[in-house]
Amino acid sequence: MTSHVRDVCIDYPDWVDEVVDWHRTYPADDDRMRLAIALSRENVDRDTGGPFGAAIFQRNGRLLAVGMNSVVRLNNCTLHGEMVAFMMAQRAVGSYTLKAPGLPEHELVTSCEPCAMCLGATLWSGVKRVVYGALREDASRLSFEEGPVFPESYAYLEDRGIEIVRGVLRAEATTVLERYRAKRGPIYNG
Amino acid sequence: MTSHVRDVCIDYPDWVDEVVDWHRTYPADDDRMRLAIALSRENVDRDTGGPFGAAIFQRNGRLLAVGMNSVVRLNNCTLHGEMVAFMMAQRAVGSYTLKAPGLPEHELVTSCEPCAMCLGATLWSGVKRVVYGALREDASRLSFEEGPVFPESYAYLEDRGIEIVRGVLRAEATTVLERYRAKRGPIYNG
Repeated sequence: MTSHVRDVCIDYPDWVDEVVDWHRTYPADDDRMRLAIALSRENVDRDTGGPFGAAIFQRNGRLLAVGMNSVVRLNNCTLHGEMVAFMMAQRAVGSYTLKAPGLPEHELVTSCEPCAMCLGATLWSGVKRVVYGALREDASRLSFEEGPVFPESYAYLEDRGIEIVRGVLRAEATTVLERYRAKRGPIYNG
Repeated sequence: MTSHVRDVCIDYPDWVDEVVDWHRTYPADDDRMRLAIALSRENVDRDTGGPFGAAIFQRNGRLLAVGMNSVVRLNNCTLHGEMVAFMMAQRAVGSYTLKAPGLPEHELVTSCEPCAMCLGATLWSGVKRVVYGALREDASRLSFEEGPVFPESYAYLEDRGIEIVRGVLRAEATTVLERYRAKRGPIYNG
C-alpha cells in the first residue's frame, strides 16, 4: 500500500472513438439512448467495466461527452458511467455546472436508472433533463444495487426543474445487463 | 467550448502538506475530526474551494487519504471533499473498495453531513463507519443544499453495516461554514 497519493486521473478506454461518432447530431431520445447502450455493450464486450453507459447532450442533439462504468478498470468506486460523463462534460465546457450562463441546456442520457450517488450528482451537474433505459429492477436482477433512492428522491429533482424520462429502449438496455451476467462479469458493489 | 475531452485529472491544492501530518496516528474521533475541519478551514482561507474537508482513516488511526471540496477549483461538480478522499484512498490501496480482502477496516471522517451524492458513494466505497461534524441544517443556513437525503437513506446504510456518528465537534465545524459565508465565497450548487 502506498500512501501520499496526490492525484487521480480518469480516462476513457481506448475503444471510445470506434464506438462514438462525435460529429453527428442525435435528434431524438432513441438516437441518444442507442449511443448510451452502445457504450454499455462495448464496455462489457471489451472487458473494460460494468454494463452501463451514459452521454451528455445539448438540447439540439449535439454530443458533449460520454461515460462508461470504469469502477474496476480505474479502481475507483465513484466512476459510474454518469459520473464519468459529468466530469468530462464539465471539463469540456470549463465549468462546474452545465447550466453556467451562456451555455445551452444539457441532458443526461444513461443506459440504466441512476444510483443514489449519480442521482445526487445529477442535481449538482446542471443538467435539465435525465433519460434512462433499464429500470432499477432490471439492474437488481443482476445484483447491482442502486442504493438509497426513493420516490421522494425523484420528486426532489423534479421540484428543482429536472425532467425525468424513464424506460427509453428498456429492452435493448436490459439485454446488455443480461449479457454481463452471462459473462459472469464482476459485481462490484462496495 | 472544446469537444473530445478524454481525461480529467484531480489533484490536491499545493498547501496540503502544510496542513496534513501524514505520519502521525489519529486515535480518537476528535483527533480525526480536527484534521477534517483543518482541511475545510484551509480550503476557505486559501480560496481553493468550499468549506468542507474529509479524511479516510484505518480503524487503528492511520491516515490513508484526505479530501477537500474542489468543485470550483477543478470545474467539477462531483468533487466534494468526501469524493476526493474516496478516490485518493482507493488509488492508495489499489482497489475500488476499501473493504477488499486483506485490508483493515476504514472510515470516513467529514467536517459536514454528506450530501446525497456523497452518501451514495459512501455505500460503494467500502467504509464501515462515517463520522460527521456540522449537520445538514448548519449547511442549509449557508444555502448549501444537501439534496435528496432522508432518514431512510441513513437507515439503508445502517442496514448494510455502516455505522454513522453525528455532530462530532459540530461547533468548530460550523465555524468554518460561517467563515465562508462571511467571506462571501461562491455557493456552487448546480
